[in-house]
Amino acid sequence: MANPTLKDIATILGVSTATVSRALRDSYEIGPATKKKVAELAKQLNYFPNPYASSLRKGRSKTIAVVLPEVADSFFSLAINGIESVAQHKGYHVLIYLTHESFEREEAILNEFKSGRVDGILISVSEETNTSTHLVKLMEAGMPVVFFDRICEDVMTAKVVTDDYESGYKATVYLLKKGCRNICFLSTSSNLSISKNRAEGYADALAAFRKKNLISNVVTCGESLAYNLKTITKLLKGKNKPDGFVVSAEKLIPPVYLSCKKLKISIPGNVKVIGFTNLQTSLILAPSLTTITQPAFEMGAHAAAILFKSLDKKRRQIMNEQIVIKSELVIRNSTGR
Amino acid sequence: MANPTLKDIATILGVSTATVSRALRDSYEIGPATKKKVAELAKQLNYFPNPYASSLRKGRSKTIAVVLPEVADSFFSLAINGIESVAQHKGYHVLIYLTHESFEREEAILNEFKSGRVDGILISVSEETNTSTHLVKLMEAGMPVVFFDRICEDVMTAKVVTDDYESGYKATVYLLKKGCRNICFLSTSSNLSISKNRAEGYADALAAFRKKNLISNVVTCGESLAYNLKTITKLLKGKNKPDGFVVSAEKLIPPVYLSCKKLKISIPGNVKVIGFTNLQTSLILAPSLTTITQPAFEMGAHAAAILFKSLDKKRRQIMNEQIVIKSELVIRNSTGR
Repeated sequence: MANPTLKDIATILGVSTATVSRALRDSYEIGPATKKKVAELAKQLNYFPNPYASSLRKGRSKTIAVVLPEVADSFFSLAINGIESVAQHKGYHVLIYLTHESFEREEAILNEFKSGRVDGILISVSEETNTSTHLVKLMEAGMPVVFFDRICEDVMTAKVVTDDYESGYKATVYLLKKGCRNICFLSTSSNLSISKNRAEGYADALAAFRKKNLISNVVTCGESLAYNLKTITKLLKGKNKPDGFVVSAEKLIPPVYLSCKKLKISIPGNVKVIGFTNLQTSLILAPSLTTITQPAFEMGAHAAAILFKSLDKKRRQIMNEQIVIKSELVIRNSTGR
Repeated sequence: MANPTLKDIATILGVSTATVSRALRDSYEIGPATKKKVAELAKQLNYFPNPYASSLRKGRSKTIAVVLPEVADSFFSLAINGIESVAQHKGYHVLIYLTHESFEREEAILNEFKSGRVDGILISVSEETNTSTHLVKLMEAGMPVVFFDRICEDVMTAKVVTDDYESGYKATVYLLKKGCRNICFLSTSSNLSISKNRAEGYADALAAFRKKNLISNVVTCGESLAYNLKTITKLLKGKNKPDGFVVSAEKLIPPVYLSCKKLKISIPGNVKVIGFTNLQTSLILAPSLTTITQPAFEMGAHAAAILFKSLDKKRRQIMNEQIVIKSELVIRNSTGR
């Protein structure tokens, strides 16, 4: 029998579908003999309960959504592994939705969740997102939401982040100590919480450096390699050439290296570079890259744990708190010996 | 009203829930005045239909599953983007399931699909998978399955692959032409269709090379960086040192480069390297890496298109065919000038 139903089992055994359903749920209303008969036939027919029917009954879909910009990034792919590790343990499905850095798409995705397809949401917002009404509306309708990495600071829920301000500060101080006096901060967005915090750390480090009046130089690049190559090459050919880069986005590392190579600018001789990335290839770049390595797996796992804690309880209220997991400065050759 | 239901609307309007349901579905059985009243109240209450109820009615979940080993790999992250681009256009949700290269987990995931959670499956099998019964059973129960990249050759369905045999052959011939006479083929699995085909291309290229009797040397590494470093270092310190590597798995590129660096073996001077990868950082490695670049996005999009074609039709039979999209040899510095 292809796709046998509760009704098929009921018809064969000459009992009601409710009896079959209760027997399979091990209800106290059904006697052991009937339970045994139902279980045996269900096994024989290869019967599997329909999860949607079960969801309707319980008001739960046993599914959470992870909304994020992309997976072609070492941070997000590791964060997903962290989320999955917790979800698997809890017996939940994970729906992964990609916004491709588009606010419009993020809004459309969240709109779909209003219909109850998922029980909760983990989100890292898109680069274009500079409002939180789409999230607040969903939360007001009772949907639990937890942020990780890229957050909306004004939304009253849990946010799992890393110490972006401190990392920006630490990276800049390290370059200053290595002799850089014209450090440029590169990111792909001026909207994102993480970019803002890192840039603030960078600016404060420059301001705190006593010897000179150092000028802050924050440059926002784009999504395409060609555009980023052009932008960075122009910077390096300009009057006020950078002698250091704090690179806030992984995808900007190839254009920084390629621009320097093209212009025969030595890394770390003429320009020193620190990148925010978890790429394993950082070790084998020419030269190997000094990085701010983020606790990506841990951040994903922690955000998932908070969400499941709320789903386990009847009352789904999530505390409005910010959990900070520290990043690490890993020194390699791109900042000199 | 939080999460209003069909029943809420029915109670307020003093009609049956069936009337409300039919009105919202624009049924011919309901008059225009009632339809208008229902639509207005639904809007006012912020009512959204439950997708699971709708799925039960239509027998469709409007969701497809993508089952793959991991996302921390440039091939898979690009393939997902390809799949998403088609699914979004078709109005489908994409559930991403990770097997983490475990057959046990793959089997457990597929077992869950028996209950109708998804309408169809795109799969790239785990490294441990050397049987197809778990897939065949699911297909016999009426679930459409399309393979991409890592396939089970004996399963009667569509398989979207790249020209792995030819790529293995081409990479090996290129190294032979560059003077290598002791080429080693590295992979992380001897089970996988893609590894087998690439290794076969490698072996045939060696056999076809007239000048000498070249010995095939296929080495299977593992998942951890530490283990792979040890394995490759041992190879490079051995009696029969390789002077060329065909690296079939992206995660083996860091240990190859790091082992050479540690042993002060020059790439490409003493050892030439070709890697199967789509990593953008290939361009900025020390030295830049010659690659077999796969049509990852295209493969994902093509596999998704075949699946949706079958879902669009009433009769879901998918042709048993193999679609081959060509990879490209991109020459950089790791194979010499």
